[in-house]
Amino acid sequence: MAVQVGIVGASGYGGAELVRLLSAHPEFDVAVVAAHGQAGTPVADLYPNLVDFGSFDGVNVDALADLDLVFLATPHGPAAELGSALFDANVRTIDLSAAFRLDADRFSQWYGEEHSRPDLLATDDSVHGAAVYGITEFARSAVASATLVANPGCYVITALLGLVPVASLFEPASLVVDGKSGTSGAGRAAKDALHFSHVDSNLTAYGAPGHRHTGELERYLGHLGDYHQPVTFIPHLVPMARGLLITATATLRDDIDGDAVQQALVDAYRDAPFVHVLEPGRFPSTKAVAGSNGCQVSAVVDPRTQRVIVTSVTDNLGKGAAGGAVQNANVLFGLPETTGLTAIGIYP
Amino acid sequence: MAVQVGIVGASGYGGAELVRLLSAHPEFDVAVVAAHGQAGTPVADLYPNLVDFGSFDGVNVDALADLDLVFLATPHGPAAELGSALFDANVRTIDLSAAFRLDADRFSQWYGEEHSRPDLLATDDSVHGAAVYGITEFARSAVASATLVANPGCYVITALLGLVPVASLFEPASLVVDGKSGTSGAGRAAKDALHFSHVDSNLTAYGAPGHRHTGELERYLGHLGDYHQPVTFIPHLVPMARGLLITATATLRDDIDGDAVQQALVDAYRDAPFVHVLEPGRFPSTKAVAGSNGCQVSAVVDPRTQRVIVTSVTDNLGKGAAGGAVQNANVLFGLPETTGLTAIGIYP
Amino acid sequence: MAVQVGIVGASGYGGAELVRLLSAHPEFDVAVVAAHGQAGTPVADLYPNLVDFGSFDGVNVDALADLDLVFLATPHGPAAELGSALFDANVRTIDLSAAFRLDADRFSQWYGEEHSRPDLLATDDSVHGAAVYGITEFARSAVASATLVANPGCYVITALLGLVPVASLFEPASLVVDGKSGTSGAGRAAKDALHFSHVDSNLTAYGAPGHRHTGELERYLGHLGDYHQPVTFIPHLVPMARGLLITATATLRDDIDGDAVQQALVDAYRDAPFVHVLEPGRFPSTKAVAGSNGCQVSAVVDPRTQRVIVTSVTDNLGKGAAGGAVQNANVLFGLPETTGLTAIGIYP
Amino acid sequence: MAVQVGIVGASGYGGAELVRLLSAHPEFDVAVVAAHGQAGTPVADLYPNLVDFGSFDGVNVDALADLDLVFLATPHGPAAELGSALFDANVRTIDLSAAFRLDADRFSQWYGEEHSRPDLLATDDSVHGAAVYGITEFARSAVASATLVANPGCYVITALLGLVPVASLFEPASLVVDGKSGTSGAGRAAKDALHFSHVDSNLTAYGAPGHRHTGELERYLGHLGDYHQPVTFIPHLVPMARGLLITATATLRDDIDGDAVQQALVDAYRDAPFVHVLEPGRFPSTKAVAGSNGCQVSAVVDPRTQRVIVTSVTDNLGKGAAGGAVQNANVLFGLPETTGLTAIGIYP
Repeated sequence: MAVQVGIVGASGYGGAELVRLLSAHPEFDVAVVAAHGQAGTPVADLYPNLVDFGSFDGVNVDALADLDLVFLATPHGPAAELGSALFDANVRTIDLSAAFRLDADRFSQWYGEEHSRPDLLATDDSVHGAAVYGITEFARSAVASATLVANPGCYVITALLGLVPVASLFEPASLVVDGKSGTSGAGRAAKDALHFSHVDSNLTAYGAPGHRHTGELERYLGHLGDYHQPVTFIPHLVPMARGLLITATATLRDDIDGDAVQQALVDAYRDAPFVHVLEPGRFPSTKAVAGSNGCQVSAVVDPRTQRVIVTSVTDNLGKGAAGGAVQNANVLFGLPETTGLTAIGIYP
Repeated sequence: MAVQVGIVGASGYGGAELVRLLSAHPEFDVAVVAAHGQAGTPVADLYPNLVDFGSFDGVNVDALADLDLVFLATPHGPAAELGSALFDANVRTIDLSAAFRLDADRFSQWYGEEHSRPDLLATDDSVHGAAVYGITEFARSAVASATLVANPGCYVITALLGLVPVASLFEPASLVVDGKSGTSGAGRAAKDALHFSHVDSNLTAYGAPGHRHTGELERYLGHLGDYHQPVTFIPHLVPMARGLLITATATLRDDIDGDAVQQALVDAYRDAPFVHVLEPGRFPSTKAVAGSNGCQVSAVVDPRTQRVIVTSVTDNLGKGAAGGAVQNANVLFGLPETTGLTAIGIYP
Repeated sequence: MAVQVGIVGASGYGGAELVRLLSAHPEFDVAVVAAHGQAGTPVADLYPNLVDFGSFDGVNVDALADLDLVFLATPHGPAAELGSALFDANVRTIDLSAAFRLDADRFSQWYGEEHSRPDLLATDDSVHGAAVYGITEFARSAVASATLVANPGCYVITALLGLVPVASLFEPASLVVDGKSGTSGAGRAAKDALHFSHVDSNLTAYGAPGHRHTGELERYLGHLGDYHQPVTFIPHLVPMARGLLITATATLRDDIDGDAVQQALVDAYRDAPFVHVLEPGRFPSTKAVAGSNGCQVSAVVDPRTQRVIVTSVTDNLGKGAAGGAVQNANVLFGLPETTGLTAIGIYP
Repeated sequence: MAVQVGIVGASGYGGAELVRLLSAHPEFDVAVVAAHGQAGTPVADLYPNLVDFGSFDGVNVDALADLDLVFLATPHGPAAELGSALFDANVRTIDLSAAFRLDADRFSQWYGEEHSRPDLLATDDSVHGAAVYGITEFARSAVASATLVANPGCYVITALLGLVPVASLFEPASLVVDGKSGTSGAGRAAKDALHFSHVDSNLTAYGAPGHRHTGELERYLGHLGDYHQPVTFIPHLVPMARGLLITATATLRDDIDGDAVQQALVDAYRDAPFVHVLEPGRFPSTKAVAGSNGCQVSAVVDPRTQRVIVTSVTDNLGKGAAGGAVQNANVLFGLPETTGLTAIGIYP
């Protein structure tokens, strides 16, 4: 019998993308499509592509606890509550919010509140806690045995896939991360700053230097990449709906050249079906992975400055959110990592 | 053993979309990815989403004749030649060009040249000739037994899916078809009119009133829809890469109201997995079907003018080209119509 | 001394465009930049292009009554009130809303409410009332002596500039108007349907067949174009911020050919500095007039159906709103019509 | 009598923007609109916004030498030739290409060819040669007395306006410049990479680390900003037609804080009518200056890394090319700097 799956927060972009992906998944059955405050609303009212999904369910913890797997795609507040309750009920859960990504200190530092369940979080000196930080490529075995998976943020997973294999080659305190995202990364809420008339033909930075995802980025660059200094992170809003590009620069240690960088990337992703390392001089483009779970990474060295330029792309709703979550779900249930994720990026 | 498939013209958008779709198809094996003049070029040089497909093959009729199924996605000139040769060799072939869509008279009228193989074409008073005109929804059994399928044009299939079930309800000579297409419908060739700097934030009509697809539209509105007058067709170029919207208006016969129109549409597509009829007052949007094989149709009646407004959308590279061709291929090989075509439109 | 001007509703797109245009106008001095509910808000908070305009003023009728000229760019409710008060105070006023465009019957029919000052409106059988309907090209002398000018809607002015000179050549009841607008025509309010993630790469019809502007279109096609039947009008939302394209079709009387149509257009606009009639076979593009007060018009005849296809473009915030209003203001104050409106469309 | 002006290279975007801007300039008369290989082609064939400009002239040096002022908007090859000839004929000339921006050594290093007229170029240790490097804000008096002005590149002027006032506060070798440009910066030639279908919804880096403009950037950061190390410059192509955003990061010297940075920017542009310094925490957006000669600059300091983030925007065809050139022309002829350049950015 197929795995019974629930999606909470399906009125948001991440949740709706989960509905889209899982509806074509051969092993998972979408049993619950829930959204706070939208119970009874036809799904197609909000998502005209989802014409066969009836109406949203309400959020009922007991009903969720009867399922085999729950995806949480709500803001971090409700996710913390639901994730804790489902963990206590021993229900496998993948949370797409920031609720369980940090240790308790970093959580209070970057989110301005105390975490309600620090016992589920990692400590400062451990990668994972009860909640496993789920970049599949760096955590296959931990995910396989997890009950609660904290799915990474879209900026952070895209940056880490480019940087983790090479960050130990950087000079200290030399890393700058320039992030560029399409609008779907900012969510569905109708805001002045997301009005088509304002975003179209427009480009701007925002939220620097204190964007919340900086804490997550620094924490895992340390644990996974052995790079332990603060990072300057500058997000930008780009006039496109989907897609995320990271352009990171760092000074390489004197003894490191482009070949060493390239080799480290190629070695890291030899067995990773979704990460494609381009040859130096080719640059990843967001459209190559649109609608897919793919990630493309490239590195090129500037010999005049001994700096490396690492660029990486994902679909922020794909590998950067719902796709990466399904990949984790596959690992969690012992399925091939690519199950239900074989769609190729839509180009043009 | 899987069906061995070849794609000719894979350097164009239609051909590349076939590669994308068929790579995830469970019953078809892509054995040949050919493109005139591109033999040896890495596929990823032209399509950065297609990273695992090596280099383009050259076009070799003998090699194609050994396959179970060939898709032709070239211009109509080479397609006429290859399609004829493959027909003579009894190889099942689906042609996405205009080479085999018309009868001989209409072909010479709209394309300004005599057809080289009129024996393969329909006559003026038959829907199909040896070449079957392949809108699956209107030709399932003819396609099932065909050797050569002429896949419809993207404007025409989108218009016909909206109009065929209701065209017999129209007053004579009252139909106007306003077509609006994204740029991928105009092909990959780099042209001034398709430069991003010119298309972006821009909108224009083009090619009216003598656009070539008018002949195809009129022919099949007659055969399939029992509407036998010339049609005014006005195509527009819209600043988006994919997606096609038809807005058609016609005067309804005095005795016809909105309910009758809606019923005709619902009845026509009761068993059509890819055509979704919206309730009157809802309007299809191109993004609802982006990247999918879906079509959405809606009709609303203006009681002040007794006119019906029929709107319909497809992804011009999906149901409007490659997707519709795969649907025909499924029928041709006795597979469920939806095999390999379960992807839902990408929204947002 | 320069003419002292006030703009009310400057927080909306039409009002902000008036600020932008008038700031470079050599004869008008912007003395008041008012917006309901925004008094004290820095203008640049809402419009980052307007960095030198301080904060919004509140709306004070007495202060407005001291000015030489007031532009109203509010919704029609407040505009009816302010316009009436300013008329009574004998202050020249140009209203960009629908408050004074219709006769009383049509107003109640299309807006669902009784007009509070029917004495200012035209009657069913007069073009203008105390409020002059201000398409400059068709009403120069009436505007010149007006106190209150009702500026036309953006869809309607674009359609009428294409249709008025030729509508008397149409067969009765044969006109269909397909309108296509960028998002700024829908205003600044943050709505789900105007979210960048939903509009980008998307295209849809909306509001047909009962869109409010239909009444205005029909009324003036009658008075100005001698065409007296109901019109089917179908608006569409296009993924661009500015620009409006009308594609209108109608059956020509038997004795009319393309030359007659072209001549009628050329004759109509011989002395109109902002309306450019293209040769048949060329199609206007919205980007050609972006940011300008220009309008481009073209007509082509389909001999197979004896239908004419009239296409016309404006910038919906330019000639379609603020630019057209400034043109009326020039006439109102005896200035050359082009004063302050010499900017050419921005292309690319 | 008005200044008689010629534009060479008017078929390109920079040249066409000059036509657009100068047609509304009160002191300059456009006497020649020339384009190599386009003599006799109607201007409106290439630029539908330029409907009143007849046909392109051919390029005739003698005719140009009779003018008061010539703008060169050709590639650097023809510009070097024409600029030299006009200099020898003592005709005031503003060149928008790279022909006269560098010293002879840097020119051969970055452009791979020897310069034909090194006598006109600056030397390694002088800012200007006979050819004056024309960022008006940094070179008013040199421009005022120049015969030949080398207009800066769009990336470089946007970066330098943000960086020059503060670069002396940076730690050595710490500057990284991330550039993001709309497509019009890449010119009008129809290329695969500029096809709407490929650029739309897409984002990619390109040309790093050896982009040609790096040499110009480094040279003038040294001369104007007292920063003398190589720079890592990474350009990106953004899905919009106009607009350029620079995001630069550098480590500040220990004793420098955000107030000092802000003060340096404010002081630098106190009397600069086109450069607007935003408060820290506000970020410039490209749309705020679209179609205008404006530049917006902002700086914010990240105390966790002691890095400054400088962002600056221009319209790459405005202040970044044609607008900046007209500003130089105003200075060259003793006119107020803002003459003919009062248009405000188009938003939305």
